Amino acid sequence: MCLGCDVVNGVVVPPGGIIYAGEYWIVNHCVSPALLRGFLIVQPKRHCEHLAELTSEEAAELGTLLQRSAAALSAVVHPMKVYVLSFGESVRHIHFWVVPRYEGIPTDGLKGLHEIVVERRWVCSDDEAARIAEQVREQFT
Amino acid sequence: MCLGCDVVNGVVVPPGGIIYAGEYWIVNHCVSPALLRGFLIVQPKRHCEHLAELTSEEAAELGTLLQRSAAALSAVVHPMKVYVLSFGESVRHIHFWVVPRYEGIPTDGLKGLHEIVVERRWVCSDDEAARIAEQVREQFT
Repeated sequence: MCLGCDVVNGVVVPPGGIIYAGEYWIVNHCVSPALLRGFLIVQPKRHCEHLAELTSEEAAELGTLLQRSAAALSAVVHPMKVYVLSFGESVRHIHFWVVPRYEGIPTDGLKGLHEIVVERRWVCSDDEAARIAEQVREQFT
Repeated sequence: MCLGCDVVNGVVVPPGGIIYAGEYWIVNHCVSPALLRGFLIVQPKRHCEHLAELTSEEAAELGTLLQRSAAALSAVVHPMKVYVLSFGESVRHIHFWVVPRYEGIPTDGLKGLHEIVVERRWVCSDDEAARIAEQVREQFT
């Protein structure tokens, strides 16, 4: 059982569905409970647990999609900065968080993450997340 | 004044010097005090503060260098997993931490980061960091 594969295969549907499918990676809103409006996930379609094991084609598309996701968020939700994080191992399928840092979220990275992920101060509704996902999708077309 | 630009321009020399220079990005060990052996930084040569502003060529090379850095670390220091993080704003020049998660570091991402960055439990000497940097450099050739 792997949450990453479940999203890829449609077993788990994140708010708004899959936003963009590249050749090797997909982009979606983080699953419910949505920790933050516009909290995106970029993950490979195939089950892969180690960055070292990515092919050069997969790696290049990763960079492209991180930039495109950040650009889409910048256009849609106007964050102060966009963070990118791939860490922790509760889900081993490689996945990158692409996180809009809004005004009001501490600029000290760990404090900001703590508010979002542990304290869950910035949670939004699935409807709100799905609305953002739709707007982000438009940026990818 | 920008630490990122200072490293790019040789004003600040990280342990072991610049490990690899691509067309748009450089890879180096984190500067002293070295928070962890093999704690690498991938940053663009030009001063750029927002991922959204990367060109498509820069973005593709970013993905390539994240994968190559992870592969080099895997070969040299044999971590359990490699994390990638670009967050916080004390240095605004875009930079990605590429962090080997060793056995003993908590797999809960925030706890692990706290040990490394705040508690500084895993600090190594500049000499040790420079030795690792040299071995990582060999993986890039």
